[in-house]
Amino acid sequence: MLDPQADCTFDCPVAEAASVLDGKWTTLIFRELLGGTKRYSQLQRAIVGISPRMLAMRLNDLESRGLVAKAIYPTVPPKTEYTLTTLGHSVEPVIAAMAQFGSQLQQRAINPSHGE
Amino acid sequence: MLDPQADCTFDCPVAEAASVLDGKWTTLIFRELLGGTKRYSQLQRAIVGISPRMLAMRLNDLESRGLVAKAIYPTVPPKTEYTLTTLGHSVEPVIAAMAQFGSQLQQRAINPSHGE
Repeated sequence: MLDPQADCTFDCPVAEAASVLDGKWTTLIFRELLGGTKRYSQLQRAIVGISPRMLAMRLNDLESRGLVAKAIYPTVPPKTEYTLTTLGHSVEPVIAAMAQFGSQLQQRAINPSHGE
Repeated sequence: MLDPQADCTFDCPVAEAASVLDGKWTTLIFRELLGGTKRYSQLQRAIVGISPRMLAMRLNDLESRGLVAKAIYPTVPPKTEYTLTTLGHSVEPVIAAMAQFGSQLQQRAINPSHGE
């Protein structure tokens, strides 16, 4: 699946994925939405430290890439919900692998002889 | 492995992995080193567009986290080689999953009806 010898310039799949997952916020938004449809306010609460402006920017970016679908309900106040598209759900193995890798990093922090 | 309901604040494995993989350059450095030990100049050539300063910064960061080992050979000029540690190799499933996800993103770009 991974060919480390292959040329990896502008059309490289790994670079393409990295450009979507650039920065920790997008990764954490995917993580929340893998748990199911979320309202804007739920995302804001779940992702500690993200600013409303950053959250809105990242969600717009994911929507424009076809990874997230937005639904607006004409209630008062209006309710906005975000759901991963089928394409968006294809990020799941990446987030799962990152959870596993992150656990190994944390074990190393507890026991520094691990991983040498 | 992935529990989307779990609280994900500062000690969250996904956030920990994202903090290491922050930005596309680190991802591409991992991708190259998964193919084996590389000299600084080989990395510079393989990762199109990275500046020497950025490459040095990222390699130092990965070395300080115990993910990359550096070996300096006292030749003229000195030769510096970088190798993933055992801990560094644990990133492999993440990069493999990113390659797969990136391919799906690229297919979508060619055939926009895919993934709706």
